[in-house]
Amino acid sequence: MLVDLTCVEFADKLAAKTPVPGGGGASAMAGALGAALGSMVCNYTIGKKKYKNVEEDVKLILEKAALLQSKLLSLVDKDAVVFEPLSKAYAMPENTEEEKNLKEKIMEEALVEASKVPMEIMEAALEAIGLHEELLEKGSKMLISDVGVGVILCKAALQGAALNVFINTGVMKNRSFADLLNERAKTMLETGITKADNIYKAVEGKLCK
Amino acid sequence: MLVDLTCVEFADKLAAKTPVPGGGGASAMAGALGAALGSMVCNYTIGKKKYKNVEEDVKLILEKAALLQSKLLSLVDKDAVVFEPLSKAYAMPENTEEEKNLKEKIMEEALVEASKVPMEIMEAALEAIGLHEELLEKGSKMLISDVGVGVILCKAALQGAALNVFINTGVMKNRSFADLLNERAKTMLETGITKADNIYKAVEGKLCK
Repeated sequence: MLVDLTCVEFADKLAAKTPVPGGGGASAMAGALGAALGSMVCNYTIGKKKYKNVEEDVKLILEKAALLQSKLLSLVDKDAVVFEPLSKAYAMPENTEEEKNLKEKIMEEALVEASKVPMEIMEAALEAIGLHEELLEKGSKMLISDVGVGVILCKAALQGAALNVFINTGVMKNRSFADLLNERAKTMLETGITKADNIYKAVEGKLCK
Repeated sequence: MLVDLTCVEFADKLAAKTPVPGGGGASAMAGALGAALGSMVCNYTIGKKKYKNVEEDVKLILEKAALLQSKLLSLVDKDAVVFEPLSKAYAMPENTEEEKNLKEKIMEEALVEASKVPMEIMEAALEAIGLHEELLEKGSKMLISDVGVGVILCKAALQGAALNVFINTGVMKNRSFADLLNERAKTMLETGITKADNIYKAVEGKLCK
């Protein structure tokens, strides 16, 4: 599994001339780190007298953040699994009409599978942004910078994964399915970017007067 | 070393109730992944006939990206090293005047050290954004989405590290030094965000018409 590599090895494998991991996996990894920072904020808030009245909410945020972290880590590897067949399909010959048709068919199937994973990364990143929004209000004020870093990493995951949706939908033959994915991705981008920017600005404003 | 942990372990340690790694280390890690994607783009461009005329430039970008990746990975651990004394200083008692003075002195020294590392992360992230700007023009068009993901991860590293500068400068007693760091950080933020957003938009525009 890619996520069982050390951080140094993962970065090296990302840099190398190998099809995976690539931008999709890197986006998922950034999202996992963003969700993990959310969990850290929860862990430092729970048990503090000052935050007793929100403790149950924060415990729920922690549960969700832990799930998202593990989901995003699993998507690092899932992205690699679905990209391999696509990478092979791209390399298929197209000298005859028969070869062309076969390549087109296999490409289309691989594109559909390969675009589902970045959509899942986007969904998880967007959900994690929502958790940081709650933590801005309910998390320990001592860790406010970590809410800011966490949300900005989730935003990067969202935006990075979006490009991996668009690169696949751009060459799909089934345009109505491609348009559907593009619309959903754009809606998530819009919602997530606005929300994340507002959280980041609020944190920055509190730290730097 | 933190970067010798597996990706799963690093995320878990980030989520845990331990002072390090925190937002600083996560920012540096995101920056390292962003730089690594730059290297990947170079590695797929070098040797291609189509990009023969920019090959020497791309080789130089690869050299720089590899250095930045390794620098940013080392900053993950450096951030932890300088944060430990700060975390201890925060916990020092301040019951007597003497204790208060001692705490203030040790805090100030720790704050100065702890703010230098996120400044270094910012500098490296900003430099990596510059490499992606060049790759947008000179890198293989097949990997354009990776330029977009790479630059957005470097932008997140820049913004994340900035919050770690501000959280330290905010409590420094030496205001002229604090203001100097804040000004430098804000200038880097402004330059880097504008540049990264332009690159991301250009990539998005090419992928999603």
